[in-house]
Amino acid sequence: MSFIGWPVPEPVIPEGTHPALADATRAAVAAFAGARAKHTRADLAEKVQMGADGTPTMRLDILVDTAVAEVVDKHRVNLLSEEIGVIDHGSSVTLVVDPVDGTANAAAGVPLSAFAGVVAVDGVATEALTCWLDTGRCWHAVAGQPTPYRTTGRRELDGAAVSLLRPHGSDDAAWWRVAKRASRVRILSTSCLEAALVAEGSTDAFADAGSDTHRIMDLAAAMVMVPAAGGAVLDVNGRPLEIDPDLTRRWSGVVAATRELAEELVSTLKEKP
Amino acid sequence: MSFIGWPVPEPVIPEGTHPALADATRAAVAAFAGARAKHTRADLAEKVQMGADGTPTMRLDILVDTAVAEVVDKHRVNLLSEEIGVIDHGSSVTLVVDPVDGTANAAAGVPLSAFAGVVAVDGVATEALTCWLDTGRCWHAVAGQPTPYRTTGRRELDGAAVSLLRPHGSDDAAWWRVAKRASRVRILSTSCLEAALVAEGSTDAFADAGSDTHRIMDLAAAMVMVPAAGGAVLDVNGRPLEIDPDLTRRWSGVVAATRELAEELVSTLKEKP
Repeated sequence: MSFIGWPVPEPVIPEGTHPALADATRAAVAAFAGARAKHTRADLAEKVQMGADGTPTMRLDILVDTAVAEVVDKHRVNLLSEEIGVIDHGSSVTLVVDPVDGTANAAAGVPLSAFAGVVAVDGVATEALTCWLDTGRCWHAVAGQPTPYRTTGRRELDGAAVSLLRPHGSDDAAWWRVAKRASRVRILSTSCLEAALVAEGSTDAFADAGSDTHRIMDLAAAMVMVPAAGGAVLDVNGRPLEIDPDLTRRWSGVVAATRELAEELVSTLKEKP
Repeated sequence: MSFIGWPVPEPVIPEGTHPALADATRAAVAAFAGARAKHTRADLAEKVQMGADGTPTMRLDILVDTAVAEVVDKHRVNLLSEEIGVIDHGSSVTLVVDPVDGTANAAAGVPLSAFAGVVAVDGVATEALTCWLDTGRCWHAVAGQPTPYRTTGRRELDGAAVSLLRPHGSDDAAWWRVAKRASRVRILSTSCLEAALVAEGSTDAFADAGSDTHRIMDLAAAMVMVPAAGGAVLDVNGRPLEIDPDLTRRWSGVVAATRELAEELVSTLKEKP
């Protein structure tokens, strides 16, 4: 049975981060580090229960989500999380949390996984923090405030660098259409980090090619961070992106450097084969 | 014009590393950090000359390779490098170096790039060091000595986690055959890091699906590290993997957790469509 030997650094959380979000991030990182120190890869990946989103939950997710729930209780804010679901403390503030984005990476030891949290006030996303668990790097943005991040500004798909979810069968043809027009294709298997790379201008776009894999917590941080950096977040099928306690809802998110590129990705993904 | 804002940590080089290899790694990391501090993404990626391997060379590659060449001159060992080619000091020791593996990632700011160096004595690879430039993590192995790395031990392709080079046109059908049988597919665009993840048991295999993109420096570190960890390195077309100053030679490398899995990948990639 094999343990993952790499350390988990402290998160570098920017000043001014909402206290509940900052505490939740610190708690998530500490729980993640503890889980890796105590459990083998197989134990981390073991599916131990059914998550609130209706998909099986790995032990690693539960351990991190439980730590986040304790923070939420202490701060008396609400929680909307992939695994635990809804905790309602009657606050106007809800933390929308993906405790471990890229769980399969994280449990295997592929160093691409993130904590992603959003502060929603009366259902509107106002602040986002994405923390790369394997390095402690954080991306932070507040809606309506200037951000240091700037997308690449690319408007055309031909020749773009595009990250995609792996093909899921139902979206194979659409996946391939985009892969053939992009000059670079990556599959990093961590939606929140891939969105952060779009925000900071390291890649042009990221998309679920149409498999409807995304839950709102996979996209919520991008919804704050990417428009602030000049980009856009859309759904392939035109559904509005909404923070909703109904965790059975799914989207095929498209996160792109500009609205033009997002729209071209959507139209390319929706073409009839 | 945008700079990449993230720091480049010092490499964590294990004790006992060959002094020329350790110095080359330190010099490469320092040059990489300097290049990122001084040049924008566009400047780093600018193709400034033709490399010794016959492909255009980015400014970032040149800056790092030049730093490595200075170390080689100081230690009076030979160099075999993607960009500069051969430096012959008449030594029995040759450093086989990929100065920046995953250059496109590195120049764009996708934090997945590596320095990979191998010590070859009279043409035989004896020691390998792969350093993840964005975090300072290093993987080190010496041929014939025990290693802390252990592959997953997986023998079957069905359900495996496989990293692939992006499809290149000529190998589209083969790429798709493997993608459909694997349970997870990743494209990280950095061969040396992907091989290190196979060695340490974080993923089951990595392959060039048949595009003949690999040069010997893309595979040399894996040739030391992966067999020591229980895995195997093969070429899709059965060509012997040899350290050769002829840098026009190409391979389609298959790096896998076991010989059985490597052979199944080769036979799957070679099937007639």
